[in-house]
Amino acid sequence: MQFELQKTTDNSRARAGVITTDNGTIETPIFMPVGTAGSVKGIHTRDIKEDINAQIILGNTYHLYLRPGIDVIEKAGGLHKFNRWDRPILTDSGGFQVFSLGDIRKLSEEGARFQSHIDGSYHMFTPENVMDIQRTIGADIIMAFDECTPGDADYNYAKKSLELTQRWLERCFKQFNSTEPKYGYSQTLFPIVQGNTFTDLRKAAVANVKTFDADGYAIGGLSVGETEQEMYEMTEVCTADLPENKPRYLMGVGTPVNILEGIHRGIDMFDCVMPTRNGRNGMLFTSEGIINIRNKKWENDHSPIDENGTSFVDQYSKAYLRHLIISNEMLGAQIASQHNLAFYLWLVKTARQKIQSGDFVSWKNEMVLKLKERL
Amino acid sequence: MQFELQKTTDNSRARAGVITTDNGTIETPIFMPVGTAGSVKGIHTRDIKEDINAQIILGNTYHLYLRPGIDVIEKAGGLHKFNRWDRPILTDSGGFQVFSLGDIRKLSEEGARFQSHIDGSYHMFTPENVMDIQRTIGADIIMAFDECTPGDADYNYAKKSLELTQRWLERCFKQFNSTEPKYGYSQTLFPIVQGNTFTDLRKAAVANVKTFDADGYAIGGLSVGETEQEMYEMTEVCTADLPENKPRYLMGVGTPVNILEGIHRGIDMFDCVMPTRNGRNGMLFTSEGIINIRNKKWENDHSPIDENGTSFVDQYSKAYLRHLIISNEMLGAQIASQHNLAFYLWLVKTARQKIQSGDFVSWKNEMVLKLKERL
Repeated sequence: MQFELQKTTDNSRARAGVITTDNGTIETPIFMPVGTAGSVKGIHTRDIKEDINAQIILGNTYHLYLRPGIDVIEKAGGLHKFNRWDRPILTDSGGFQVFSLGDIRKLSEEGARFQSHIDGSYHMFTPENVMDIQRTIGADIIMAFDECTPGDADYNYAKKSLELTQRWLERCFKQFNSTEPKYGYSQTLFPIVQGNTFTDLRKAAVANVKTFDADGYAIGGLSVGETEQEMYEMTEVCTADLPENKPRYLMGVGTPVNILEGIHRGIDMFDCVMPTRNGRNGMLFTSEGIINIRNKKWENDHSPIDENGTSFVDQYSKAYLRHLIISNEMLGAQIASQHNLAFYLWLVKTARQKIQSGDFVSWKNEMVLKLKERL
Repeated sequence: MQFELQKTTDNSRARAGVITTDNGTIETPIFMPVGTAGSVKGIHTRDIKEDINAQIILGNTYHLYLRPGIDVIEKAGGLHKFNRWDRPILTDSGGFQVFSLGDIRKLSEEGARFQSHIDGSYHMFTPENVMDIQRTIGADIIMAFDECTPGDADYNYAKKSLELTQRWLERCFKQFNSTEPKYGYSQTLFPIVQGNTFTDLRKAAVANVKTFDADGYAIGGLSVGETEQEMYEMTEVCTADLPENKPRYLMGVGTPVNILEGIHRGIDMFDCVMPTRNGRNGMLFTSEGIINIRNKKWENDHSPIDENGTSFVDQYSKAYLRHLIISNEMLGAQIASQHNLAFYLWLVKTARQKIQSGDFVSWKNEMVLKLKERL
């Protein structure tokens, strides 16, 4: 994997770049749709590519490991073959999902023992087997196995947790470096910076991950309960020290405003379930603000969902989409999800153009006000 | 509406024809995907048209009347504008849905009083208001308001019910003929032949509907609990007496085999929720037989869903579809529904070609054996 930094900005840390993988290039800043169980919920692979114009999607190690199982994905020839997505894939390590399981997981030095949310069966993730699993899934970008602390963790917990994450990172790289890709294209491993909302821990974490000279670095453990201000501050702390010539990925973030503020603070890659999950519930993100399509005010609004939208679904009317969502018709969730993802991809593409033309900050400040509006 | 009978067959009642409406032509025999609440579940209008190649779809008066309500559809400019479907639409009259409500509906000479399945509110359908509602929905083909008897009804009930249906039919035509289309294209009214499984009642019903010299005729009250043999016999009784130069529509039928046997007995139009409903549950219809994709045997079958399939979704693998259906991923229901509808449309299109080339019966007999296979 290679990263070319193409353009930086004077009054912002925003950057434009290009990531090159064996499965295609990614123009940054980029948003990555989440395909938890191997499908971006409600959207055909064809439309993710041709209508939404996604350049890379996510898969979740935890979910894919439990179902369909790694054996099935290996027999398919990897996830790209399994779900017919021929562009880059990033897999998370399962660390965050295991963290989300709460009472049904137990951490030790060895790894994380957990119960399947599907059938209650017991499983163990270790830095080593999580590397192997992601090798087998066939991710272009593999994430380190880490512990993610809750937003309200105290300093001592956060510090001990970070130390565990760092020991695990060492084991991740050892395993990754002693194994080979399975499907003929190269794979790379991104470390994850933890440290909760504590500046000194974040700085120590960044210093630690840099020693591995990775192809890219992720910032984890944000958007997990801390305030938005804390999230932005920690992002700044991390990007200040991370290498300029490597992509930075802010995991699990966020709203359209969060994404623009993240780009402003030097982030290149984002993922979040919000566009699909909130879409299924009838929340639409547009360049003019947020629409709750369930609202009675849209009942007889027969204008297109989004006059400025880039997706073919934007031509359905607001009244029709409202009817579908309220009637629990699948097509409603499909339309809203597809609209939201197309909007997110439009947003990062436009941010990139503004970075290249030198207008990013003024455009960002203007957009942030509009994006927060409730229509 | 016009119907041109293009080709008949010697050893079968199968026919090929063309229906012309102001919103486009329909090559018969045809299958009509069901869009109950104004959307064919799980499939974008674009794909119904361009991928499935449907020529006409159904809407349900009962569902659309309750939600979003006729007022919303009228303000949209009719259902074609509302759901962005610019080819013909047929609406059922609500008679069958009201019949399905069981205890929460009450019939009288005036009409059917029923409770909404959504909020328990009371409503009344009459032959008159059902004509008005379908006028407002903007259906190209409007169905008469009738009573549908259960498959095990006794003779006396069936006879009294038929008489009510016939009195209602008179009122339907009176109302229909004294009202105008609302959106600038013409609409037509199809009577429905009832009479349960009693030959004399069916013959009387056919004689009655013919007096209205309609543009087309429907056969209702089949596939509601009677045996398959009875269904075929009653279909034959009806098509023997219905006018040759008008299309015949067998309502709510059925499996791929039912459709071929219906065509063989002189039916031109079909609709059924089976391809979408069974698809959502993981049942696939193919030219080689029936696949229950939940079956363990497909777990590692990485071949395309249907090698002979006409839809782009047929290129997903069986193993991937199985994973999606078992994981309750929306995309699984979408793929299976789209495959099944594309298959149904392929089936009637091929039947039409075989009728035109004179090979229908031998092809039908061969297909019927294959279509019943469990793969």
